[in-house]
Amino acid sequence: MHSPVLFLIALVIFTLPGAHGGKVLVFPLDGSHWVNMRVLIEEIHLRGHSVSVVRASDSWYIKEMSPYYTSITIDATGGQHKEFVSLLVSRLLRIQREGASVWTRYSIDMELKDGFSQIHKNICEMVIQMFEDQRLMQSLRNAKYDLVLADPGAGGGAVLAHYLGLPLIFNARWTLHGEAHMAIAPSPPSYVPYPVAELTDNMNFPHRVRNMFFYILRPLLYKSTVSSHYTALCQRYFGPEVDYFQLFQAADIWLMRVDFVFEFPRPTMPNVVYMGGFQCKPAKPLPEDLEEFVQSSGEHGIIIMSLGTLFSELPHDLADEIAAAFAQLSQKVIWRHAGDKPATLGNNTRLVTWMPQNDLLGHPKIRAFVAHGGTNGVYEAIYHGVPIVGLPLIFDQPDNLNRMTVKGAAKIVDIVTLDRNIFLQALQEVIYEPSYRLNMQRLSRLHRDQPMKPLDRALFWIEFVMRHKGAAHLRTESYKMPWYVYHSVDVIGVLLAAMLFILLMILFVIRYLCCRVWVCCKRKVKHE
Amino acid sequence: MHSPVLFLIALVIFTLPGAHGGKVLVFPLDGSHWVNMRVLIEEIHLRGHSVSVVRASDSWYIKEMSPYYTSITIDATGGQHKEFVSLLVSRLLRIQREGASVWTRYSIDMELKDGFSQIHKNICEMVIQMFEDQRLMQSLRNAKYDLVLADPGAGGGAVLAHYLGLPLIFNARWTLHGEAHMAIAPSPPSYVPYPVAELTDNMNFPHRVRNMFFYILRPLLYKSTVSSHYTALCQRYFGPEVDYFQLFQAADIWLMRVDFVFEFPRPTMPNVVYMGGFQCKPAKPLPEDLEEFVQSSGEHGIIIMSLGTLFSELPHDLADEIAAAFAQLSQKVIWRHAGDKPATLGNNTRLVTWMPQNDLLGHPKIRAFVAHGGTNGVYEAIYHGVPIVGLPLIFDQPDNLNRMTVKGAAKIVDIVTLDRNIFLQALQEVIYEPSYRLNMQRLSRLHRDQPMKPLDRALFWIEFVMRHKGAAHLRTESYKMPWYVYHSVDVIGVLLAAMLFILLMILFVIRYLCCRVWVCCKRKVKHE
Repeated sequence: MHSPVLFLIALVIFTLPGAHGGKVLVFPLDGSHWVNMRVLIEEIHLRGHSVSVVRASDSWYIKEMSPYYTSITIDATGGQHKEFVSLLVSRLLRIQREGASVWTRYSIDMELKDGFSQIHKNICEMVIQMFEDQRLMQSLRNAKYDLVLADPGAGGGAVLAHYLGLPLIFNARWTLHGEAHMAIAPSPPSYVPYPVAELTDNMNFPHRVRNMFFYILRPLLYKSTVSSHYTALCQRYFGPEVDYFQLFQAADIWLMRVDFVFEFPRPTMPNVVYMGGFQCKPAKPLPEDLEEFVQSSGEHGIIIMSLGTLFSELPHDLADEIAAAFAQLSQKVIWRHAGDKPATLGNNTRLVTWMPQNDLLGHPKIRAFVAHGGTNGVYEAIYHGVPIVGLPLIFDQPDNLNRMTVKGAAKIVDIVTLDRNIFLQALQEVIYEPSYRLNMQRLSRLHRDQPMKPLDRALFWIEFVMRHKGAAHLRTESYKMPWYVYHSVDVIGVLLAAMLFILLMILFVIRYLCCRVWVCCKRKVKHE
Repeated sequence: MHSPVLFLIALVIFTLPGAHGGKVLVFPLDGSHWVNMRVLIEEIHLRGHSVSVVRASDSWYIKEMSPYYTSITIDATGGQHKEFVSLLVSRLLRIQREGASVWTRYSIDMELKDGFSQIHKNICEMVIQMFEDQRLMQSLRNAKYDLVLADPGAGGGAVLAHYLGLPLIFNARWTLHGEAHMAIAPSPPSYVPYPVAELTDNMNFPHRVRNMFFYILRPLLYKSTVSSHYTALCQRYFGPEVDYFQLFQAADIWLMRVDFVFEFPRPTMPNVVYMGGFQCKPAKPLPEDLEEFVQSSGEHGIIIMSLGTLFSELPHDLADEIAAAFAQLSQKVIWRHAGDKPATLGNNTRLVTWMPQNDLLGHPKIRAFVAHGGTNGVYEAIYHGVPIVGLPLIFDQPDNLNRMTVKGAAKIVDIVTLDRNIFLQALQEVIYEPSYRLNMQRLSRLHRDQPMKPLDRALFWIEFVMRHKGAAHLRTESYKMPWYVYHSVDVIGVLLAAMLFILLMILFVIRYLCCRVWVCCKRKVKHE
């Protein structure tokens, strides 16, 4: 009598999507990148796999206890310090608004560079501590993981995967060497704008010169900032013949946190899986008091503002200008704001320290999103079709918002020169000029019209790597070539040399024949 | 009372996959390519769209009457003549077996080239006839097609789509300019073997030199064979500023009849959709008498042989050798053979003029597939995991089989030097050496493990283009650039010139300063 019940239970267990009981070892990057990784980890867990996460004991984002993963806590200084980046960003903003000299700007850039160098040094030290802990490494080997899932914003995951001989999957947008495509796909500088260059795929000559400078100079910057630490790490454990950049390029699958609604069309590789917007989901109902506030906006609707996790606090004068502009709107405003209450705050504006951003973006009353332009926020706006007023400051934010601007779905305001009039004008333009909303809704339709949801696609390929122990048939091995072989410099050189040789031979023969004819003629003349 | 029933009916109608009632205009390529196109057309029809097919009145493959499409028959000489190609192939084979001189070989090549040139001339004349028929063109405009689906093996579809201002989808493996990737994706010659060069993605120096020759010379061949006809056609109707190669590159979606189980990993583009094996499906039961014959093979199993549609008849001596080898096998053999019965035919071999190839390849008793190496047959073998004994002769066949050989799933026999012993040895190796079967089964597992069936993926993107009137966000516009802009020659030139100028200026200043110092010193010495 019990057997059909047992059979049914077994059936349910074995047909659960992905109940294959795989084991995933995650080497994340601390900070805002963790927000993305956590989405993947939760889904991997939900599909019946087990997840272990390597974290530093002082991590401020990656919690030790979680229902979704078990932690492997290394007693080390973590990869990233909230204080360092967020304080620097606030300082940068303040200095720029006060009119920074080139020298001040440069010194902050240097500080940022040194800070990042220190972060990667810390990550390398954490990896060394792992490798030196024989018991830990043996337990990792014994655990028989199926794969390493890593954020290529740090090099630790690639090194760990190589050490353990495991397949490697990247949850990628940026690597140690710039935007992720740059590490593996051909990128013709004529129509692939260097990410962060704030260009498009349709460039005039000066644009293309600017783009070329980015292609030449940026890799040098990345190289000087972080390479040395990982090079030393690889040399220590794998010998001089293993190049740490090659460990990167050897990843089986690149889960790319973009798609071509956001990215300009460009060459890609078979092992790149686009999952832009994988974290997006339909809006849930709002908490009662928030819903009440939203409904009180009537036909005017609401605006939300959030500048992400980096901006801990805005300069007072800036907050006052923003609040004053908001106060003049007919819309209600929900503003994620951490500092003191601005003096100019209007009755229509509610300050919050946290908000259900996705649920608000999906609310029918939303009219615009004031955002800093991090990829996550931009994708949530695309998913829900909400036009953006952009206040970018650093990293990829200006470039991300530039992409939305050229598609007619966002307007950028320079946060450095922002005052209430400029900001109000931008807000009103985005709210009342229908093209912004229509363009963003078109992007939303394109983004949602895919054969498979981005998160499902990502999970399919993670489970694919589990099933087949990698994805070698999708991955080119061309990264193993020396640069002169990759670019066919040797072949072209030899062919040109051969052509030159043949040409010279022909010339030589012609000259020889001419001489002979000349001599013959002369003789003939003499004989006559 | 009726309303729930009506609702249910409406629900069924509107949720049928693709019952959007789209309209597709097809410009196919006659001959074996039509076999592929028909599979797509049938599926498009099954999803509730209507299909019109442009065909020449003398087409030998594309029937006028079909339940799946309506014909637009043009009173013209069609694109391809069965007789021309198949007679040439038979002649080529006979001549080669008799020991052809270089001159004979060359003259056949020239004949083939002239034949293809004539085919494309015919296609262009057919298009001109369409364009000149104002009533026909008006009716095509009135029909309000959603898109043109074409085989880029001919240029007619791209020209027609441009004329009608419709989105364009290619069902592609070869174009007028060689393998389809070559027209749109970056292809570094260092690791992308030129298709037909019979190379792999792992090349030594001589291989790479050979590959480079293909990259340089092949496009010249294609250009000289067919370009002139289409260039003239474009100039006549669109003026000199429209380049027919650009019409090609402007296609919205490329449904590529390969995937990376077959193709070596290489750069690709966002608007390339891989549908290799889209025609494959599970085996159906065999007709009773055939099943009986197959079962009579016992534990030894069966072998099937088919050389596709091109080989109308094998030379007698060759057929005798093949039959003699088959006769020595323990397996039963089913051989699709059109000529006279070979004298050496064994009892174990059954000659047929047609066979249910897919059902036989999917039969549990199948042991090996003797094939010419056309893409369709190779994909059916991959799908069912059946190792191949390859007898390639022309076009992409040697290259296709080379790909299977380096993956350990096929063995190639040179059909020119084939005798019973060589052939028997190859057959026995593929049947009894388990690696062939295991490798092909591994490829089969990889090929089948996709998020979506290839045919469903193709249909998704066809319907996507219907819904969004193109796929502009997936298509680079870089093809509109002149070559020197695409390759950044202008930017690099200017930067080098600028560097040279700066260097010269520095040298000039140094020289000037040195002179001054020299003069000063001399004066000082004089004064002293």
